[in-house]
Amino acid sequence: MEHLRAAPADSRPATPKTKVPVTVLGATGVVGQRFVRRLADHPDFELAHLCASPRSAGKAYAEACDWRLDGEAYAGFGGKVLLPCDPAMAASPVVFSALDTDAARELEPLFAAAGCLVFSNASAFRMEADVPLLIPELNADHLGLLELQRRLRGWKGGIVTNPNCTTAVLLGALGPLHRAYGAREVSAVSMQALSGAGYPGVPSLDAMANVIPYIKGEEDKVETEARKILGRLDGGRILEAPIAISAQCNRVPVLEGHTIAVNLRFGTQPTMAELEAALASFVPDTAGLGLHTAPTSFVRVRHEADRPQPRRDVEEGGGMELQVGRLRPCPVFGAKLVVLGHNTERGAAGASVLNAELALARGFVR
Amino acid sequence: MEHLRAAPADSRPATPKTKVPVTVLGATGVVGQRFVRRLADHPDFELAHLCASPRSAGKAYAEACDWRLDGEAYAGFGGKVLLPCDPAMAASPVVFSALDTDAARELEPLFAAAGCLVFSNASAFRMEADVPLLIPELNADHLGLLELQRRLRGWKGGIVTNPNCTTAVLLGALGPLHRAYGAREVSAVSMQALSGAGYPGVPSLDAMANVIPYIKGEEDKVETEARKILGRLDGGRILEAPIAISAQCNRVPVLEGHTIAVNLRFGTQPTMAELEAALASFVPDTAGLGLHTAPTSFVRVRHEADRPQPRRDVEEGGGMELQVGRLRPCPVFGAKLVVLGHNTERGAAGASVLNAELALARGFVR
Amino acid sequence: MEHLRAAPADSRPATPKTKVPVTVLGATGVVGQRFVRRLADHPDFELAHLCASPRSAGKAYAEACDWRLDGEAYAGFGGKVLLPCDPAMAASPVVFSALDTDAARELEPLFAAAGCLVFSNASAFRMEADVPLLIPELNADHLGLLELQRRLRGWKGGIVTNPNCTTAVLLGALGPLHRAYGAREVSAVSMQALSGAGYPGVPSLDAMANVIPYIKGEEDKVETEARKILGRLDGGRILEAPIAISAQCNRVPVLEGHTIAVNLRFGTQPTMAELEAALASFVPDTAGLGLHTAPTSFVRVRHEADRPQPRRDVEEGGGMELQVGRLRPCPVFGAKLVVLGHNTERGAAGASVLNAELALARGFVR
Amino acid sequence: MEHLRAAPADSRPATPKTKVPVTVLGATGVVGQRFVRRLADHPDFELAHLCASPRSAGKAYAEACDWRLDGEAYAGFGGKVLLPCDPAMAASPVVFSALDTDAARELEPLFAAAGCLVFSNASAFRMEADVPLLIPELNADHLGLLELQRRLRGWKGGIVTNPNCTTAVLLGALGPLHRAYGAREVSAVSMQALSGAGYPGVPSLDAMANVIPYIKGEEDKVETEARKILGRLDGGRILEAPIAISAQCNRVPVLEGHTIAVNLRFGTQPTMAELEAALASFVPDTAGLGLHTAPTSFVRVRHEADRPQPRRDVEEGGGMELQVGRLRPCPVFGAKLVVLGHNTERGAAGASVLNAELALARGFVR
Repeated sequence: MEHLRAAPADSRPATPKTKVPVTVLGATGVVGQRFVRRLADHPDFELAHLCASPRSAGKAYAEACDWRLDGEAYAGFGGKVLLPCDPAMAASPVVFSALDTDAARELEPLFAAAGCLVFSNASAFRMEADVPLLIPELNADHLGLLELQRRLRGWKGGIVTNPNCTTAVLLGALGPLHRAYGAREVSAVSMQALSGAGYPGVPSLDAMANVIPYIKGEEDKVETEARKILGRLDGGRILEAPIAISAQCNRVPVLEGHTIAVNLRFGTQPTMAELEAALASFVPDTAGLGLHTAPTSFVRVRHEADRPQPRRDVEEGGGMELQVGRLRPCPVFGAKLVVLGHNTERGAAGASVLNAELALARGFVR
Repeated sequence: MEHLRAAPADSRPATPKTKVPVTVLGATGVVGQRFVRRLADHPDFELAHLCASPRSAGKAYAEACDWRLDGEAYAGFGGKVLLPCDPAMAASPVVFSALDTDAARELEPLFAAAGCLVFSNASAFRMEADVPLLIPELNADHLGLLELQRRLRGWKGGIVTNPNCTTAVLLGALGPLHRAYGAREVSAVSMQALSGAGYPGVPSLDAMANVIPYIKGEEDKVETEARKILGRLDGGRILEAPIAISAQCNRVPVLEGHTIAVNLRFGTQPTMAELEAALASFVPDTAGLGLHTAPTSFVRVRHEADRPQPRRDVEEGGGMELQVGRLRPCPVFGAKLVVLGHNTERGAAGASVLNAELALARGFVR
Repeated sequence: MEHLRAAPADSRPATPKTKVPVTVLGATGVVGQRFVRRLADHPDFELAHLCASPRSAGKAYAEACDWRLDGEAYAGFGGKVLLPCDPAMAASPVVFSALDTDAARELEPLFAAAGCLVFSNASAFRMEADVPLLIPELNADHLGLLELQRRLRGWKGGIVTNPNCTTAVLLGALGPLHRAYGAREVSAVSMQALSGAGYPGVPSLDAMANVIPYIKGEEDKVETEARKILGRLDGGRILEAPIAISAQCNRVPVLEGHTIAVNLRFGTQPTMAELEAALASFVPDTAGLGLHTAPTSFVRVRHEADRPQPRRDVEEGGGMELQVGRLRPCPVFGAKLVVLGHNTERGAAGASVLNAELALARGFVR
Repeated sequence: MEHLRAAPADSRPATPKTKVPVTVLGATGVVGQRFVRRLADHPDFELAHLCASPRSAGKAYAEACDWRLDGEAYAGFGGKVLLPCDPAMAASPVVFSALDTDAARELEPLFAAAGCLVFSNASAFRMEADVPLLIPELNADHLGLLELQRRLRGWKGGIVTNPNCTTAVLLGALGPLHRAYGAREVSAVSMQALSGAGYPGVPSLDAMANVIPYIKGEEDKVETEARKILGRLDGGRILEAPIAISAQCNRVPVLEGHTIAVNLRFGTQPTMAELEAALASFVPDTAGLGLHTAPTSFVRVRHEADRPQPRRDVEEGGGMELQVGRLRPCPVFGAKLVVLGHNTERGAAGASVLNAELALARGFVR
């Protein structure tokens, strides 16, 4: 099976490449719909199965849920009959999971045992020692944990996870800066979009013209996941990065896009010019791999006084580009900045798809 | 002239007390209207003059602006003719200033020289060494700077200022905790209401469903004003509190109320129980003075997981109570919390009026 | 049992009056909470029982739901244990029902049969021929249907209903104008608040920065209920008013208050001055009864170009005053105007309480 | 000069076609920016000059204003120096005007006299008897008024206008239905987006969580413009369509897209099926002309219960498609429906550009 990248238009190969069949678990939800839209015309993957809860299985996709995204309704898959989340009926070489934590904990191992490589947006297995928690641009080598995972668990397939949406956005700034200068202490205060709570999610009577200064479980995820992602793979295990991280997570009346105000203390304080250069010249681990979902630049530095703003900037790079603004000295930590990213793309569906593209490029998809 | 507090209903004094005449400068704006509403039925003060820009002077109050507050339109003063901001026409023993910075810098000294005690919400003189920057519950003794000010500037009156709205809210938590345990480092990330920008203020095309991660000049004000307020009056001058403070200020789609996520590092780390007790048992400098505008409690500690919220909680204590929630350990600083306050009352009009009540109680009003 | 109105302060009766015990069905919801707050310090009624679904019964009120209103949490009843909606345990002379339609259809008759007079905000019985559908200011005499109802159904108690929230607001304009000039055709396009959908109600992902041009069942309710309310009680039955009514109902991102754009055609076209006079000089059926919840004026005519506005004006008269603005000629119908009212007070909780006050004043409460 | 439509990719003409140079007046505003974005890569037109007020003239486009649209900032014209609105410096065969009414009244005739064909979004000349007021799909023949205009005014160029944004959206439903069945009476209640007020436009303190039931001058425009557009060109003059129209215009917290609730009375009442067919099978006057900006379908009929919704549907057809939903019987008028359209594209910039494409196709551009 050959997985070529799309060639330039004037030199198309004579024989079309074969796409890898994929399954989406939890296809009816907010993130599931984004998986379907991303995969509907993906150059490497082909949507084989859409799976949903027992309540929806057996119905046509268009019957089982309301399509909430722009563009063609149901990405053209409105007539496709939903299957139950059962590997006996819906296994594919690649499986994308938009399941809730509890369902993920139960069902993802069944698919992994059945030989599927599961790319999961759920938090269930993220912090397991043998499960890769990936941001391909930052820790592509952690994919190597799959070997350990298969050995330990006796799976032919496996589980690969992407971080919580807020972690994913924070790492857009923290990742390149830590790599360049070694962060010691990080304080992150998020202003998170409503879409992060799924659908129906936050009632409008709570959300409108308000701030809700609490998101269940979120702060702990950010504080622990970031250290694993920035950790070093050493002898088959991750040594977590020795960074103290504090997160405060807030819900604000924004539709898409998490904005995070970040303070950073480094071992030796770099200048602002050095920090900006570290972001602007960052070379991701995925450079040269031509991954379809990877944005042109992992992180963009903005110089306007009042950007990035979620409503105006969140869709850059197909929702996969991270944006840093207001990089400036901090009287307490040394440096502070604002980072913005798309919580249901860079922080969910797009993240899983990019992970799968990396796994495919690295030969982990059988 | 006697300024008695309102006596209980069943023992009213035979002779009514005489109220102090007051002037409001900048009466047509968002904060000016709040001054007028607060003063319309104040037990100690009586609205004598409303002043506005040359463009509005000579018009009736109701003609010159739209009333934007709840309750009786123009607080019953809709027919009052606006005067220019000129002490020759509009001097009173007490003057409240809702002027913009530039106008304040020019006009407030004229009133002070004319013998008026000016209570200013403007930033123009806040950081001058001889000008009190007051939160009466926290640094009532700083009012003593007035003696120095009068001597140095040769004024019969004077200028007393209240802090920037974000500083005022931050101090609701920081003030009592610093007094009890000595804060060393503070990081504050604000989510600020639209009313803070005045009227017309932020265009709806910018504000709706968005975060604007920048408010001009705001971060510097918070970082400097807080140290002065928490400073010690020593030999006629303020020794600033040795606290490193970092502020990041954001505009969010909220109508009233600034919410601030705060991290705090102390010299020796107190327990969460100790910190909570320091807030809950805080005795303000104003205790026992019976100031009309002072809330029952300066700061209230909330225990719900997701409070305080601006839309639901901002009006507590007539907008003068500060609320702290989510007090918890911080992996970086030791402690973190959320504090909420009313930006145009505790952070503006109510603050100035409370300052004037303190000055009256302490005998500074002639 | 004596039910006196509160006497003027200087002539208090020597013996305190006895309040009527009341029960609230569905106390945990958005409307139920408003019932509790209105009844907590009502001069005629005393909260005896709070009832809720089997899931909540047995819990303390504060445990079973989040309080979503301003003012004291749970109106001081947070510790009260919720009962099931069962007349064997929770009967009172007066019962207020904030139940959903299906529950109302099943449970309200049980309370009516047990001798309770049920004041229902549900739609279940509104259009039954023997059930009063009341706006006390407009059709107080329809209460007389209770005699028929008791005879037909063999109930000792009975059911009295208030209209749908949008009908209630529309009638603020239509009622007085129809009484004065006889409306023939009415077109009403509503812009309805989110609170009308209850809690959790409309997801924020649907509501924010959007219009939803559909509210299930709403248009039919407005078109039929208004004709019954404006009908004539004749020989024990209601002859519906011969008005053609068209409603178009939309949800907009507003928290409280339904705004309705109305066109009106009369038999003979009155002048705008005549229409304004009909509103301004309207004498409600409740005049002189001193009902506690009745606003000073049933409907107020506003003359500003851009009022009424829901966020600014909805709380007038404790949410019970209706407001008409922009009365002007219509090139098609003759007249057009905007009417605003509080959907969960004038259109729900306040409406039921006012109905009960009328019934009490008219001697229908035993 | 030849103006071919873009040919299919595999049969490109050997010689590139020459594009018509165009000027944009008022390029810095909300509508002006949309003109620039639409014209930046237009197949027929080439941006020659950007003009602005004297205050901005001489500055680079990027200096003079903030770009408020998605996509490339300033559509790549950020460095272009702005000219004053003076035909001596900025004349082109085609001129697009996003000027305010007063400026338009003064400046557009100067360009028309200088030989430019001005496509104006301003209201200044819309109702002049010799000025075409166009929706190309509905009254393309009205362009013929240009002959009269040139004769009467002695201009070599001319002025062609597009309707007010609300009129433009209303006509999406009313136009096809009137053509098929002859409307007699129309009532339209609009819920209009904030962008319609320009920038800075509506202050967020007025707009948030509110309805403003008034938009200055808007109702009169809708009531008069629609009759002209639907009128018949007869002997060089327009006979207005004999339809009684009533408009009620409201501002709601929506970013883009006007939603209108419409009631329609016809001479003889068609069935709902007939009305739907009239919309679905409508053949626009522009059929076969291949105009670049014309949407695939002028109006789309939707069948979901709760659509169209502005946030979800407004961008269809590049903002040029109109959408009708909820077509149903009306107890008063016979029929009612909801129509949605993009106020700053179909109702402004896109409308003017489509007018220019029609004029070009019909040979009016010299």
